[in-house]
Amino acid sequence: MPSRVEIILHESEILKTNFLRDPHVRRTGVYLPAAYDGVKRFPVVYLLAGFTGRGTMMLNESAWNENIQQRLDRLIATNAIQPLIVVLPDCFTKYGGSQYINSEGTGRYEDYLIQELIPYIDAHYKTIPERERRGIAGKSSGGFGALIQGMRHPETFGAVACHSGDMHFDLCYRADFPPTLNGVKKYGGMEKFLETFREARPKKGDWHAILSTVGYATCYSPNPETAWGFDLPFDLETGEWNEAVWARWKAWDPIELIPQYANALRSFQILYLDCGTRDEFNLQYGARTFCARLQRAGIPYQRQEFDDGHFDISYRYDVSLQAFSDAWRA
Amino acid sequence: MPSRVEIILHESEILKTNFLRDPHVRRTGVYLPAAYDGVKRFPVVYLLAGFTGRGTMMLNESAWNENIQQRLDRLIATNAIQPLIVVLPDCFTKYGGSQYINSEGTGRYEDYLIQELIPYIDAHYKTIPERERRGIAGKSSGGFGALIQGMRHPETFGAVACHSGDMHFDLCYRADFPPTLNGVKKYGGMEKFLETFREARPKKGDWHAILSTVGYATCYSPNPETAWGFDLPFDLETGEWNEAVWARWKAWDPIELIPQYANALRSFQILYLDCGTRDEFNLQYGARTFCARLQRAGIPYQRQEFDDGHFDISYRYDVSLQAFSDAWRA
Amino acid sequence: MPSRVEIILHESEILKTNFLRDPHVRRTGVYLPAAYDGVKRFPVVYLLAGFTGRGTMMLNESAWNENIQQRLDRLIATNAIQPLIVVLPDCFTKYGGSQYINSEGTGRYEDYLIQELIPYIDAHYKTIPERERRGIAGKSSGGFGALIQGMRHPETFGAVACHSGDMHFDLCYRADFPPTLNGVKKYGGMEKFLETFREARPKKGDWHAILSTVGYATCYSPNPETAWGFDLPFDLETGEWNEAVWARWKAWDPIELIPQYANALRSFQILYLDCGTRDEFNLQYGARTFCARLQRAGIPYQRQEFDDGHFDISYRYDVSLQAFSDAWRA
Amino acid sequence: MPSRVEIILHESEILKTNFLRDPHVRRTGVYLPAAYDGVKRFPVVYLLAGFTGRGTMMLNESAWNENIQQRLDRLIATNAIQPLIVVLPDCFTKYGGSQYINSEGTGRYEDYLIQELIPYIDAHYKTIPERERRGIAGKSSGGFGALIQGMRHPETFGAVACHSGDMHFDLCYRADFPPTLNGVKKYGGMEKFLETFREARPKKGDWHAILSTVGYATCYSPNPETAWGFDLPFDLETGEWNEAVWARWKAWDPIELIPQYANALRSFQILYLDCGTRDEFNLQYGARTFCARLQRAGIPYQRQEFDDGHFDISYRYDVSLQAFSDAWRA
Repeated sequence: MPSRVEIILHESEILKTNFLRDPHVRRTGVYLPAAYDGVKRFPVVYLLAGFTGRGTMMLNESAWNENIQQRLDRLIATNAIQPLIVVLPDCFTKYGGSQYINSEGTGRYEDYLIQELIPYIDAHYKTIPERERRGIAGKSSGGFGALIQGMRHPETFGAVACHSGDMHFDLCYRADFPPTLNGVKKYGGMEKFLETFREARPKKGDWHAILSTVGYATCYSPNPETAWGFDLPFDLETGEWNEAVWARWKAWDPIELIPQYANALRSFQILYLDCGTRDEFNLQYGARTFCARLQRAGIPYQRQEFDDGHFDISYRYDVSLQAFSDAWRA
Repeated sequence: MPSRVEIILHESEILKTNFLRDPHVRRTGVYLPAAYDGVKRFPVVYLLAGFTGRGTMMLNESAWNENIQQRLDRLIATNAIQPLIVVLPDCFTKYGGSQYINSEGTGRYEDYLIQELIPYIDAHYKTIPERERRGIAGKSSGGFGALIQGMRHPETFGAVACHSGDMHFDLCYRADFPPTLNGVKKYGGMEKFLETFREARPKKGDWHAILSTVGYATCYSPNPETAWGFDLPFDLETGEWNEAVWARWKAWDPIELIPQYANALRSFQILYLDCGTRDEFNLQYGARTFCARLQRAGIPYQRQEFDDGHFDISYRYDVSLQAFSDAWRA
Repeated sequence: MPSRVEIILHESEILKTNFLRDPHVRRTGVYLPAAYDGVKRFPVVYLLAGFTGRGTMMLNESAWNENIQQRLDRLIATNAIQPLIVVLPDCFTKYGGSQYINSEGTGRYEDYLIQELIPYIDAHYKTIPERERRGIAGKSSGGFGALIQGMRHPETFGAVACHSGDMHFDLCYRADFPPTLNGVKKYGGMEKFLETFREARPKKGDWHAILSTVGYATCYSPNPETAWGFDLPFDLETGEWNEAVWARWKAWDPIELIPQYANALRSFQILYLDCGTRDEFNLQYGARTFCARLQRAGIPYQRQEFDDGHFDISYRYDVSLQAFSDAWRA
Repeated sequence: MPSRVEIILHESEILKTNFLRDPHVRRTGVYLPAAYDGVKRFPVVYLLAGFTGRGTMMLNESAWNENIQQRLDRLIATNAIQPLIVVLPDCFTKYGGSQYINSEGTGRYEDYLIQELIPYIDAHYKTIPERERRGIAGKSSGGFGALIQGMRHPETFGAVACHSGDMHFDLCYRADFPPTLNGVKKYGGMEKFLETFREARPKKGDWHAILSTVGYATCYSPNPETAWGFDLPFDLETGEWNEAVWARWKAWDPIELIPQYANALRSFQILYLDCGTRDEFNLQYGARTFCARLQRAGIPYQRQEFDDGHFDISYRYDVSLQAFSDAWRA
């Protein structure tokens, strides 16, 4: 009997009201290994999609890469990993993503994940419902989400993997600000952009920079009092810097959070990070800085660098899932 | 009752032997409209994926675009089109695609499509099995395939739509040759490239140019006598031009084929072409040239240009499917 | 009698010792208008070249643009400006430029300009040796230099023009730091880069980012105690940010200096700034921020934006020189 | 006594009438070595500038490269070459260059060079007025010009050097045609482009492609009967290919001309070609093809490839001038 993926329509109470009026019913993928028989219990891993992604997109087919089901099937069949349940949450928002945190500018996605989705999964599937057999992993904004949720909920997760995760915001996010300044003009101003960005064609260059800036601002510096629901760390006309707003962003920068979450970080069975040496968003420097600081704090971790960029790197899950599995099999 | 997509594993006799040893069992998508009840018959449209694509990839989810099922559901629900069966064939090859033609360097994909897949669909689904209710459409290399197969099989297809289809090869394919010349060196020669291209990371710049050149050469200028199975229209060391090989490619250029297939072209209920004015492969000039020649030959057609590039343009199916449907409802 | 340009070999005492061991004899251009007869006195303008430039390069010929002599000849011949003496100083350094300031990491270029070159010019040419008839202007790093030297020496200059000048360092300089991080690796480390950058071929992409970062660091954060003579505001391995070093850079950012030099700024006959709306270094935001702050401080200025980028914009001197001339003719 | 460069205003009879109404008085540079005393005679080399260049631009200063005078001074001072006279002709046209040939669409630049400039130089300077001591060299379109004029006038030149010269037109020129098609629209049509191209800002991307296409068309496929004075090898609206016009271009492609000029090619003391392995216009393939054909024809030549692109490669003159000098010293 082969593995299967169930696509469930998961209904959230928490998301019933959310600032962006995004749907509260979420298509969520649940991978059940071939060995899943409704009796035996398995460890569970939550895989978080990156910005502009939903979990179910990891099921998309492509020409040269396995999708997540094919990947898991192979890893399990070759005994590289033990059979696992894998959950693919949907925390997408109107502007591309929630960063998996609670925000007045988007919704309570952390609460949704921790208080609703995980209990639901544990209730409806044969997981081993313990932190020591529950992992969280992700790539890019999903790597950020995995790390942040791991740090904030060590009672929930025992293993964390962050692939090319957002961090060192000065290096990864600021690069989008000049093209945002330049691009917003072309789209006729921010208001116009927010109204029309879905129809913009082709979605090139500036478009991504503006959307990213908007999406992150809704998460890190929401301001429901304003027209758009968020503050920007710079003036859209003059580019003048607003350090107070930027400080709100940096309050979420993993490289700044180690002292605050040192106990959690120390508690993991596995704390794994990796990044490509040619990451288009310079996230390798974030990973290096984060790990240099872990080291200074005496917190154990595993880190790899690989010769690649930021995109099409789902093959890195082979490494992190194996690290999880090894820890759990031990 | 909602629409559904069946993913069938279609077994081919014709593809059992093929030069590239690609699989002969093909995952094929079949969209059945909500109204499909196993009794009533519906027109059928074959949608051909572009280079590096398989039909089922049209079912992939994305952040901002409908997949083909969502698109068809909406078009039918709003009565923009009548209920249709839509088939998503898989004619992918090891090097990215078959161009939907028979070739010694790939396999007999035209025969597979016409002699095996279509009869199978007509036998197993409630199609209206007549050319007057059978259309073929595609984008990019799929648009090329739709046009070529339409021209070669007017007995099979009554309606043809070509979105941003490969044509005017001098403008669309030649641009890949200099980066192929430059890139092959970096990958350590053609032989090395052919062995390692699937693992190359990241798949950027030259990589696409080389793979495209290789893929098209396997279709247009196969040579099973050679080490690689194909000839190139230029010398890989000096770039010297080989007009004889290029003539084999051009024998497939739609802009050259109008006289040969004039009767077929004249016979269609719908002959629709469109292309973006910012097509990254300059295909708008191909469409203009093709249609200028149709006009000189007195062959009717519909053509649109739209303000976009080559990618993420599946919304163009709204126009072509509606043209098909209008013709069939009339 | 036509205008003429004298190229003088100006010998500096101040530059005899300088950290980078750059030459102390400097080829300096002096434009003398057709009306110059050795008797009549003329206002004088100092034109400062940008980063990687020397004053005499403004005499270079090009296909589509006037050089500075042709430009001045035309402006004077059409009476757009009065006859002027124009001086083209050389403050180039081994790493691309001095920013026209004193620095332990380069040399005392401010002192050279103010204490040696200007007195020399006044002594050897028929200038009107008064601040009310002495202007300073430049483009890019030369625009920065003009503004900084104007602010620091209002006793010397009565008119200042800054074209696309370096300012708002957060927006204009930081963009070079990620490619510097990435690029230094490719060149085999900073030490290797500093040894070989002149021979690097082609001088593309990263190369410019690294050289700029190095050049500015020698000016803004010199450190003669270190191997290279300068500190960087980030760690070359991890990218960790060094706010203390960055604060030394920002101490030179014109947008931060208005309070300190408010009196000087208020004293100018002409304070002119402009920038292209498509400046590749985002300097239009610097100009907007600087001028917004001038306005809040009640300091008069003239500002223009023009539809162009950062390069090949010497035609902007037509505007600034005319502003100078108008003020002086009044 | 140092070397000197005389800038002469050379008046041409031949250019008095020319289709583009370009000036018939040409600023021409003449380098006279330090040893030049008005008595002793020296070999002479004609250096031809590339497209959009004039000979005197080789005297421009730059941050990291020698200009031609500095280069020659060094080569002579170090005895790498013997003292030479070097002439820097101006064959620029309104649209960027004459390719140094006679054309109804530009003017009789070949005749100007051979019949007027060279006799003038021989009459006014102490050259050794013999083919065995007269060389011609150039880069890019100047390399093309050197090769073409060498082939057509072996009675005039004994030594030829072609650096990164235009050849294999299918690879080097065609790449400009798609951006020309796309770009002309943006500029409001060809007529508008021809009127306004000098003022276009910034001169980026398409601009260069269009101007190159126009410039070469005025040389290779002039047509004084048409509005613009030239024919294009493609239709500006549909991109349809015009093989007859292209054949006129190819009639000037050096790789096609070897049989026609075999005797001339065989007659040179030195026939030197080189090109960078990363040439942005793919000219390395032209050089390889040209030399492969020379070899098949049994014609001796020297060829080098170097690890660089197309720009800032004047250091390659060190090699060709030394080859000339060695041959002449022998």
